[in-house]
Amino acid sequence: MNFLQERIRCDGIVKPGNVLKVDCFLNHQMDIALLEQIGAEFCRRFSGAPITKVLTIESSGIAIAYPVARILGVPLVVAKKNTSVNIDGDVYLAEADSFTQGKVNRVVVAKKYLSEADHVLIIDDFLANGCALQGLISIVDAADAEVVGCGIAIEKGFQEGGHRLRNLGYRVESLAIIESMDDNSITFRPQE
Amino acid sequence: MNFLQERIRCDGIVKPGNVLKVDCFLNHQMDIALLEQIGAEFCRRFSGAPITKVLTIESSGIAIAYPVARILGVPLVVAKKNTSVNIDGDVYLAEADSFTQGKVNRVVVAKKYLSEADHVLIIDDFLANGCALQGLISIVDAADAEVVGCGIAIEKGFQEGGHRLRNLGYRVESLAIIESMDDNSITFRPQE
Repeated sequence: MNFLQERIRCDGIVKPGNVLKVDCFLNHQMDIALLEQIGAEFCRRFSGAPITKVLTIESSGIAIAYPVARILGVPLVVAKKNTSVNIDGDVYLAEADSFTQGKVNRVVVAKKYLSEADHVLIIDDFLANGCALQGLISIVDAADAEVVGCGIAIEKGFQEGGHRLRNLGYRVESLAIIESMDDNSITFRPQE
Repeated sequence: MNFLQERIRCDGIVKPGNVLKVDCFLNHQMDIALLEQIGAEFCRRFSGAPITKVLTIESSGIAIAYPVARILGVPLVVAKKNTSVNIDGDVYLAEADSFTQGKVNRVVVAKKYLSEADHVLIIDDFLANGCALQGLISIVDAADAEVVGCGIAIEKGFQEGGHRLRNLGYRVESLAIIESMDDNSITFRPQE
């Protein structure tokens, strides 16, 4: 097991409905040392790739993507879920279901922050049905930029998102892929 | 002018309705080097204070608060605006208006992440009417924890939030306090 799998097994809580609560270290109270380790591991896995921007989606992706962008020395673009008076003008728009919120979000990125010259590493905390990630990919595609790959902290391997995206040819690196989980145990897919 | 004031004057855009757009470096595309500098400056201003947790509010506060928590070596607690199936159990609850979104948000922190032993530094990107900050303060108070102070990137000094909170005795450190702004110029309150 790697450091994230160990932490999930130690502090993650499985709830009914295939919900994994990691809010004590990942998305409500954040263990910054762990997030730094996650960021460094993404940079190791994608080392050598020409990355010009990191793209994530608010809000729980931000703290995962922040150290990646810092280590790579590139800007972090945060896709917005709800347009506000502070975003206007030309935007790329996609739809993304939220598994945990049970609703469809509009995802927006201002056009000026992605161009055909960009090589984009997409970062998010969870990958389940893959709708959020597909929304981000479609935005990168709409900008004629290149998707270098996707870095995911926790993938629910028993849902179809990761499988579908890899089948489409995208490089998806998930630090912890959960094969199955119940009250008593969490089983991870073996990794190198 | 300090580094943030210079950046705002260079890249900030004033829109009708007292809206300051800083999305090209602070809250849509993020300049991580600038955020690191902001984080280091908050740590300098609050150096010596016994801080056990950094508290912010999703989503645009996260990237401001992240480097502060990392430098201080303490957990970052992110108050959630909308409860989801991933947060349940005992929570502290407050209401906070959003100036830019024009609506009232419920702000939630799980009780287990704040205790009477905590000394909390509150970090946010903007301070205008102060409702978000008051919501966070009321949550810290409800936990019988101590508010060490509030670190704000940009304060709209012509709105009443900062004045009201300082009058209540809170230490509010804003890196850029805007006295007035229009299409042609932004005037900052002088600082040491």
